[in-house]
Amino acid sequence: MQERIERVTAWLNKNRIEVAFLNSIENVYYLSNFYTDPHERLMGIFVFKQGQPLFVLPTMEVGQLQDSGWKHKIIGYSDHEDPWELIRNSFNERNLTKADTVAIEKEMLSYSRSEALLNLFPKVKLVSVEDKLNEMRVVKDDAEVSVIRRATKMADFGVQMGIDALVEGISEMEVLAKIEYELKKKGIREMAFSTMVLFGEKSGDPHGNPGERKLKAGDMVLFDLGVVLEGYCSDITRTVAYKSVSDKQKKIYQTVLRAELASLKACKPGMRIGDLDKVARDIITESGYGDYFPHRIGHGMGINVHEFPSMNHLNDGLLKEGMVFTIEPGIYLPGTGGVRIEDDVLITADGFETLTKFPKELQIIE
Amino acid sequence: MQERIERVTAWLNKNRIEVAFLNSIENVYYLSNFYTDPHERLMGIFVFKQGQPLFVLPTMEVGQLQDSGWKHKIIGYSDHEDPWELIRNSFNERNLTKADTVAIEKEMLSYSRSEALLNLFPKVKLVSVEDKLNEMRVVKDDAEVSVIRRATKMADFGVQMGIDALVEGISEMEVLAKIEYELKKKGIREMAFSTMVLFGEKSGDPHGNPGERKLKAGDMVLFDLGVVLEGYCSDITRTVAYKSVSDKQKKIYQTVLRAELASLKACKPGMRIGDLDKVARDIITESGYGDYFPHRIGHGMGINVHEFPSMNHLNDGLLKEGMVFTIEPGIYLPGTGGVRIEDDVLITADGFETLTKFPKELQIIE
Repeated sequence: MQERIERVTAWLNKNRIEVAFLNSIENVYYLSNFYTDPHERLMGIFVFKQGQPLFVLPTMEVGQLQDSGWKHKIIGYSDHEDPWELIRNSFNERNLTKADTVAIEKEMLSYSRSEALLNLFPKVKLVSVEDKLNEMRVVKDDAEVSVIRRATKMADFGVQMGIDALVEGISEMEVLAKIEYELKKKGIREMAFSTMVLFGEKSGDPHGNPGERKLKAGDMVLFDLGVVLEGYCSDITRTVAYKSVSDKQKKIYQTVLRAELASLKACKPGMRIGDLDKVARDIITESGYGDYFPHRIGHGMGINVHEFPSMNHLNDGLLKEGMVFTIEPGIYLPGTGGVRIEDDVLITADGFETLTKFPKELQIIE
Repeated sequence: MQERIERVTAWLNKNRIEVAFLNSIENVYYLSNFYTDPHERLMGIFVFKQGQPLFVLPTMEVGQLQDSGWKHKIIGYSDHEDPWELIRNSFNERNLTKADTVAIEKEMLSYSRSEALLNLFPKVKLVSVEDKLNEMRVVKDDAEVSVIRRATKMADFGVQMGIDALVEGISEMEVLAKIEYELKKKGIREMAFSTMVLFGEKSGDPHGNPGERKLKAGDMVLFDLGVVLEGYCSDITRTVAYKSVSDKQKKIYQTVLRAELASLKACKPGMRIGDLDKVARDIITESGYGDYFPHRIGHGMGINVHEFPSMNHLNDGLLKEGMVFTIEPGIYLPGTGGVRIEDDVLITADGFETLTKFPKELQIIE
C-alpha cells in the first residue's frame, strides 16, 4: 500500500499539484487496504505533494482502519461534527489552503463535495486524478492476482452448481437462487453483478433478465456470474445445451468457441488491445453472424467488475504483464437463442493464463 | 407520473429556475416509472419551466422507456455519439442555453457532469433540486403503498424462512443463504441491503457481519433483511431466542418490545418526528440500557431503503398521512448479545399501520 501512495505522491510532484482527494470506495481500498462504505457520510484520503497522507472517516470506523494497517494521519469525526471544519483546521496549520491545483475523482466526486473542496481551497483549479489511478490499477500485483484467482475458482464453482440444478421444468430464477445459495454457503457475501441464468430464446437477448421461463429439452442455457471476494471480482459465462442440441445451435457454439480461443491465443504483452476484439469479430463475421455480436470483446476486471482497460476495437493500448480482463465473445439470435463464452484472463510474462477453468467444450446436459 | 413532473415544473416557475436535471436512478424512476441503471453512460431527465420534459439515454434503452409509458421528448444516443452535443443542439433550438439558474442533484451529480452542464450553460448558477424531490417522495401515494405492502410481505416471509432454518450448529452464512434462496425462488432479484443474520454475542454489535459463527442453545438470533420489489424496498428486524432464554435476555427483549410498541402508538399525523425517538429512548433509558441504544429510532423508506425523513431526536418535522418509515429500537450489550425489533410503518388518516406483520412476542425456537 505504501508504494501505491508513493506513486500518487510522485505524480503530484511531477504535475505540481498540491493535494489529491480520493473518495471512491474502490480507490480508497486500493490505496489503504481498507474497504468501507459509510454511505452518505464523508470518507476519503488526502495525498499531499509532501508529508503523510490523511484519512478522513467517521470516528466509529477509526479502529477498523487502524486494524487494517493504516499508519498515517487520521481525522475521525462524529455525527454532530462537520468533517470539513476539522479538515480546514488541519490544513490551515500546514498552510495548505493556498494550494492552486487539487486533483479529484471527477467521475466519482459529487458536486456538493466539490463545493466543500472549493470552499476549503478558494480559487483552486480542480483536475482529475482518475487517469492515474486507472493506470495504476490496470496492472495487478501478485497479491491481487492471488485474490482474483480465488474469486475465479468460486465463479467456476457457481457454474457447476447451476448445471447441477438443471431439471426439466425448473425456472431461471430457481436455478439462480440455487447458485447463489451454494456460493453463500461457501462464505460469499456479495455477487459481482446481477447473476444471469437464461433459457432458450431468452439467451438470445444480451440484455435479458432471469424470470419464470421454465427449462425444456433443446434449450441452450446461459450462465453469467461472478463473486466479490476480499474486494476483488470474478466474472464467467458458460453456455450449455439441455438434453439435445440442433445443428444451428452447434454451429453458433463452435463459432463462439473458435472466436474465444483465437482471441485468447492472441493475448501476450505488447499486443494491441483493440486487435483482440478484431480477432474474435473476424471469425464471427466470416461465419455470417457479425450482426449478432453487438458488444466489445471484454473489459478489465479487479476491484470493479468493469474497469480499465475497455477491450474494444478502438483501444490502441498494449497488453502488459499483470493485466486482468475478460474475453467474452457472443452470438445472439433474437427469438432463437444465444451463446456467450467468457473467461477471466491474466497476462503473463510471455503469454496468458485463463483464471477461470471451467470446461468449454459443448456440453449436453442430460 | 405526469402529476409529479408538473409539481417539479411548478417549483421551477415559483423559484424562477429555467431547467432541472435529474440523473439519479431513484429520482428518474420516481418521475418516469422507468427504472434503469446504464452505469457510466449518461441517463437523466431535463424538466423545464415551460414545455415538455426531455429524457436522455442510450439508444438501446429507448424502446424500454417508451414501453414504460414515457410520452415526452427523448434523446437517444449511441456509444459513438456525445450525448451532450445532442442536448446542446436541442437546447439551442429552444434558446435554453441562456438560462441563468439550473437545478441539479448536488449530492448525486458527479463533478464531471456538472462540468458538462456548465459547458452547456455558461455562467449559470447551479442550485439543488434534491430538497424538492425528497419532500415529494416522503409522502407515498396509493400505488406506492401497494408495492411497499407487497415488499413487506416478502420481508415477513424472509424472517420465517430464517427461523425455519435454525438448527444447532448451522452457521450464520448458511441461514442467510437459505433466506435469500427462498426469496429468490419467489422471484426477488435484489435484497434491499446486505442481509444480517447474527447469533449470540455477535448480535451485540450493531455493525456485526454474518460469518461462520455456529448456532448453539441459549443464543439470541437477530435477522435484519428486506427486499427490492418493483423498485421499492422493505426492511424488517426480528430477534428470537434459540432453545432457551436467560432472564437478562428476556429483560432486554421486553424492554425493546415495550419501546417499539410505545413509539408505534405515538405514530399519527401531526406528531413531531423527533419525539418518536424520545418515546422509545426514554423507556430504554429508564430500564438502564440508555447507553446501549446507539442509533436513531428509524428512517424513511421507499425507493431507497434509507430515505427522508431521518427519524432522529432532532427532527422537528411532523408526521403526515402517507409517510412510510421504520421504527427500530435496539439494545446491544457488547460480548453478550443484542435485540432489535423493526417494523415498517405507514401513517394513516388518524394513526398508523404496521406493514410488516411478523409476530413480535418473544419466541423460543426449539
